[in-house]
Amino acid sequence: MKASEHKLIQKIGKALAPKGVSWLALGAGDDSALLTPRPGYDTILTCDWFLEGTHFLPGKHPADSIGWKCLARALSDVAAMGGQPRCFLLSLALPGKLALREKAKGTVWLDEFLRGLRRAARRFGCVLAGGDTTQRREILSNVTVIGEVLAGRAVLRSGARAGDRVFVSGTLGEAELGLQNLRQGARVSPRNDRALRKHLYPEPRLELGRWLAGRRLASSMMDLSDGLSSDLPRLCAASGVGARIEAAQIPSPKVSLPATASKQFDALGLALNGGDDYELLFTVRASNVRRMPRSFRGVALTEIGEVTREQGIVIVQQDGTTKPLFPRGWDPFR
Amino acid sequence: MKASEHKLIQKIGKALAPKGVSWLALGAGDDSALLTPRPGYDTILTCDWFLEGTHFLPGKHPADSIGWKCLARALSDVAAMGGQPRCFLLSLALPGKLALREKAKGTVWLDEFLRGLRRAARRFGCVLAGGDTTQRREILSNVTVIGEVLAGRAVLRSGARAGDRVFVSGTLGEAELGLQNLRQGARVSPRNDRALRKHLYPEPRLELGRWLAGRRLASSMMDLSDGLSSDLPRLCAASGVGARIEAAQIPSPKVSLPATASKQFDALGLALNGGDDYELLFTVRASNVRRMPRSFRGVALTEIGEVTREQGIVIVQQDGTTKPLFPRGWDPFR
Repeated sequence: MKASEHKLIQKIGKALAPKGVSWLALGAGDDSALLTPRPGYDTILTCDWFLEGTHFLPGKHPADSIGWKCLARALSDVAAMGGQPRCFLLSLALPGKLALREKAKGTVWLDEFLRGLRRAARRFGCVLAGGDTTQRREILSNVTVIGEVLAGRAVLRSGARAGDRVFVSGTLGEAELGLQNLRQGARVSPRNDRALRKHLYPEPRLELGRWLAGRRLASSMMDLSDGLSSDLPRLCAASGVGARIEAAQIPSPKVSLPATASKQFDALGLALNGGDDYELLFTVRASNVRRMPRSFRGVALTEIGEVTREQGIVIVQQDGTTKPLFPRGWDPFR
Repeated sequence: MKASEHKLIQKIGKALAPKGVSWLALGAGDDSALLTPRPGYDTILTCDWFLEGTHFLPGKHPADSIGWKCLARALSDVAAMGGQPRCFLLSLALPGKLALREKAKGTVWLDEFLRGLRRAARRFGCVLAGGDTTQRREILSNVTVIGEVLAGRAVLRSGARAGDRVFVSGTLGEAELGLQNLRQGARVSPRNDRALRKHLYPEPRLELGRWLAGRRLASSMMDLSDGLSSDLPRLCAASGVGARIEAAQIPSPKVSLPATASKQFDALGLALNGGDDYELLFTVRASNVRRMPRSFRGVALTEIGEVTREQGIVIVQQDGTTKPLFPRGWDPFR
């Protein structure tokens, strides 16, 4: 029996249908979804590609990780505004055989994908509102997340001023290290490999983002999806400022370097240029730095430098010399 | 010089940046877009794939048509709710060479694409709010439209009752006829070929949808994207009813049939099974039918049958006999 689009939509709806969500007047199934906005809140809108070959490899990435990550990536943009997610639209294109139940093989790609997606949806409080499906040789997904933030409280990229301190959450470069482990077929399980876990099941910093926005601690903020060396210049450009960061302060992964280690496994290089971390990069007015804790709910908050009047990004190296920092993070067109 | 994602985003922003739109707090350029909802309105959310090979052929479809149609398709879902569009998110994946200015070739794919998209955005009053871009061998797009409708006034698929009359707007099957002309390399220009124009530059029935919703004339509504024989059963299923339609009443394209004409060019077949029309299918209570005009702003409104208590769709043929109508419209999984 052949799959039909109708059956695929029913299956997705069954796996992810919201229950008891009164503000969602109408979920997947009509022409559009209807959402009743809360008075006094602005609506946050963001979308993200997640494509086979470009962002994941079906032979390497477990289906439930693909489901988790397609939503988590988009949620990270809501975190970066200091917002709260409400619902999402899932656009999914699949080969027909992945949409079908393949009893012979034991595992079913779509079921695993939906399991990962459902886990992320529940964990981060974001329900399916609709989407679009079609058949395709390769797996393509695009997720739109709709969130909300108290009117006027969203944290933009453009609020940094000279003298502000630059902060990052968590450890940078871990996800890239996890990807390299995965690519090399390292026999590690996400259960006991922190870097691999971070690559496969990233945790958007939603609570931290809301906390920083709610206390008006962050003067500017964005999420680190392409790597610090590519993302920090974007925040600085939006604010019309530059930055000076300290190599010694950047929270990089603990890598035990074998003698034959390639440059790619250099811990600082990973932290500067590795993508997919979904940590938050934000600035704090100097007068507010004393209000900043060292960590928030188990996630480290690290001051890595300061915002400068002079445009351009400078990195102070471990030996005290400085050099310009060039964007070497993820760019699909490079 | 190589294209970078940053430059591509700048180019898209320049072509489509909203001017003087105060409710859009923040357009493309930050992590997310921010939208201030109007009090008393519900938010409409919808998204649509538009993919090379699946939905269009770059060798056959002009780039400006691809730009126009990727937005028009999604807007049609807003029309089907009786809503007004506000803004859209554009997710675009492109081969690097299409993102670059190709001076040698004279024409630039991306410029033409953006021109068609901008024309549709202006025509239908929907501004770019954000999106995502990446590089890809094939052209992929996904458009999310955010609209609004007076709270409680959206017209759903589920409101049809036995005895309601079934209506459609415009002529059905024209877009499919236009596609067949295009596929066969017919030497026609959209300027003098109505069917081709409808295939390349469909007009979502936004004004009609709002008018029907505003006057509470439509008891249920959806847009015809996959063909009447596939879409009418969806509306009926959502309402828990059936329908009986009259073949003689269905507004089908004027096709002059050569003796060698294939079945595909049968006018009724086109009207029943042709996709991509983006006309509205709606039901009207019998007591309201006298309030229905024959046309609305130049678009015909045709009564084609009635809603029945018995489930299933029946078509009364030209010779007076009836038979069940099976879904033979567009299904990507068939």
